[in-house]
Amino acid sequence: MCRLCGNSSKKNDCGKESRRHDRDTPPLRQWAIKWKSSEKEFQSVSALTKTSMPVEVRLACRSGEWAMQTSGLAPGFAQANLVILPREDAAEFRQFCERNPKPCPLLEVTEPGCHSLNRLATDADLRTDLPMYRVWRKGELAAEVSDITEFWRDDLVSFLIGCSFTFEAALIENQIPVRHIELGCNVPMFQTNVPCQPAGKFHGPLVVSMRPLKPAHAIRAVQITSQFPDVHGAPIHIGLPHDIGIFDLQKPDFGDAVRIATDELPVFWACGVTPQAALMAAKPDFAITHSPGCMFVSDVKDSSLRQPN
Amino acid sequence: MCRLCGNSSKKNDCGKESRRHDRDTPPLRQWAIKWKSSEKEFQSVSALTKTSMPVEVRLACRSGEWAMQTSGLAPGFAQANLVILPREDAAEFRQFCERNPKPCPLLEVTEPGCHSLNRLATDADLRTDLPMYRVWRKGELAAEVSDITEFWRDDLVSFLIGCSFTFEAALIENQIPVRHIELGCNVPMFQTNVPCQPAGKFHGPLVVSMRPLKPAHAIRAVQITSQFPDVHGAPIHIGLPHDIGIFDLQKPDFGDAVRIATDELPVFWACGVTPQAALMAAKPDFAITHSPGCMFVSDVKDSSLRQPN
Repeated sequence: MCRLCGNSSKKNDCGKESRRHDRDTPPLRQWAIKWKSSEKEFQSVSALTKTSMPVEVRLACRSGEWAMQTSGLAPGFAQANLVILPREDAAEFRQFCERNPKPCPLLEVTEPGCHSLNRLATDADLRTDLPMYRVWRKGELAAEVSDITEFWRDDLVSFLIGCSFTFEAALIENQIPVRHIELGCNVPMFQTNVPCQPAGKFHGPLVVSMRPLKPAHAIRAVQITSQFPDVHGAPIHIGLPHDIGIFDLQKPDFGDAVRIATDELPVFWACGVTPQAALMAAKPDFAITHSPGCMFVSDVKDSSLRQPN
Repeated sequence: MCRLCGNSSKKNDCGKESRRHDRDTPPLRQWAIKWKSSEKEFQSVSALTKTSMPVEVRLACRSGEWAMQTSGLAPGFAQANLVILPREDAAEFRQFCERNPKPCPLLEVTEPGCHSLNRLATDADLRTDLPMYRVWRKGELAAEVSDITEFWRDDLVSFLIGCSFTFEAALIENQIPVRHIELGCNVPMFQTNVPCQPAGKFHGPLVVSMRPLKPAHAIRAVQITSQFPDVHGAPIHIGLPHDIGIFDLQKPDFGDAVRIATDELPVFWACGVTPQAALMAAKPDFAITHSPGCMFVSDVKDSSLRQPN
């Protein structure tokens, strides 16, 4: 199974062939998108509705009723990536995030052993409130479970990292079309030749997501996403992919390829896959992450993450 | 003489050959830039220094002591374009500016007959306080003078329009190099195929200025100039000049061509030549403008024009 995108495949890792994997075996995200177009089908698998509040989503996860992707759930509320590490690795990972705030914007970090939150929700239990988790030992996937209570330890530190769903919602609200959402597929993601600032064992290249936009939309998108530094903020590059080591936009390293029209520029944002890739490269003895697309649904409104420049 | 850029030439208008004109006959701006590199030479022609306050510049203009370009004078203070029209044309011109705020950002508009200001300075006399003026009759240049007192009428309305000097200063302050300033030449300007919103007799294409920037600088430049809506604000286009009717970046319609490196994108801002071009196309019976580069130097700080997004 691909460790990053969750595709079943003979290959163990997402690589240049990830597009083919995506086509052969639709990733979880596509599955989750399907119910968005069919309220009936959606209701047949869960009591959640498209207007469910974040707490309802978390309780549905806690009860085991909801164990799939969270894209589109609790619209208007921010979702977050999760990385859990033992205290011995947590300090270095925190430093890695702080040195690379564009790909790794920290929304909240817990005290060791604490599985509740302060900023993102007050009633959450990080051991149960995500739909699905991945447990890693020495960089290898050891288990995929919907509840990590049995794995919990008093030295575990949880990192909640901003997610692009928030700024994509803001783009759409401003009439800027987002291609992969229109197509109902995953955003195309690319490894760049831009190294992250390393911190101890954590290192690796910046991974970016790409959205094709008309120039006037690209300018507006810079303005809009600049206001959301906690969810990757402004793009890191625009228009000249060769300069950051991307040579074929139709062959993303992760996610799905999307068409770029002749009147569009590719616009690149720092991506939350960066910290996951750094984590896997570091191969810590023990780690837990969310499963791809199975994010933590917070009580923080997307709009409250908007900061005046 | 070219009506827009002030170059002496057999041609009557700036056109595709303006670059050659610039080379043959250095425009006033280049003259003004020269003194910047030679304090001695500068002091030989005026008591003004590079740190003179705006009021000192205006008084030097009023006394006739300063009658050339204002680029680089009173650094940190905003300068403005000037258009003066009889009341009968002023309403339509105001509407033209209001319908096209990116190329024509109105900083202040006077009452008919009033030659003083409120916002930009409290002690200014618009009849004397610019270095050089142009007087137009039916769209033709009728006189170029350093004092318009003899032309003043009780029905004249003055329009002070924002100037890109302010945002260029902000770019440089943020370590973003501005090519034409480095080269000591005029910014390259292009007519686009984007029509302005017409208002009565005033109409015409949007004119843009172009600055080549590396992608990361272009993104930062969008963020910075977005904060200055009163001086043209964010770029209107980036990267695909064909889409706005520009087919040869080495042949600007006005100003000087500048080199674009392979790792740079052309970034386009709405330009203050737009209202001047609309004015000349409309050919009103009577009008007065500043001479090219001979701006009104205001008491308003560049920083005070910065607006949070």
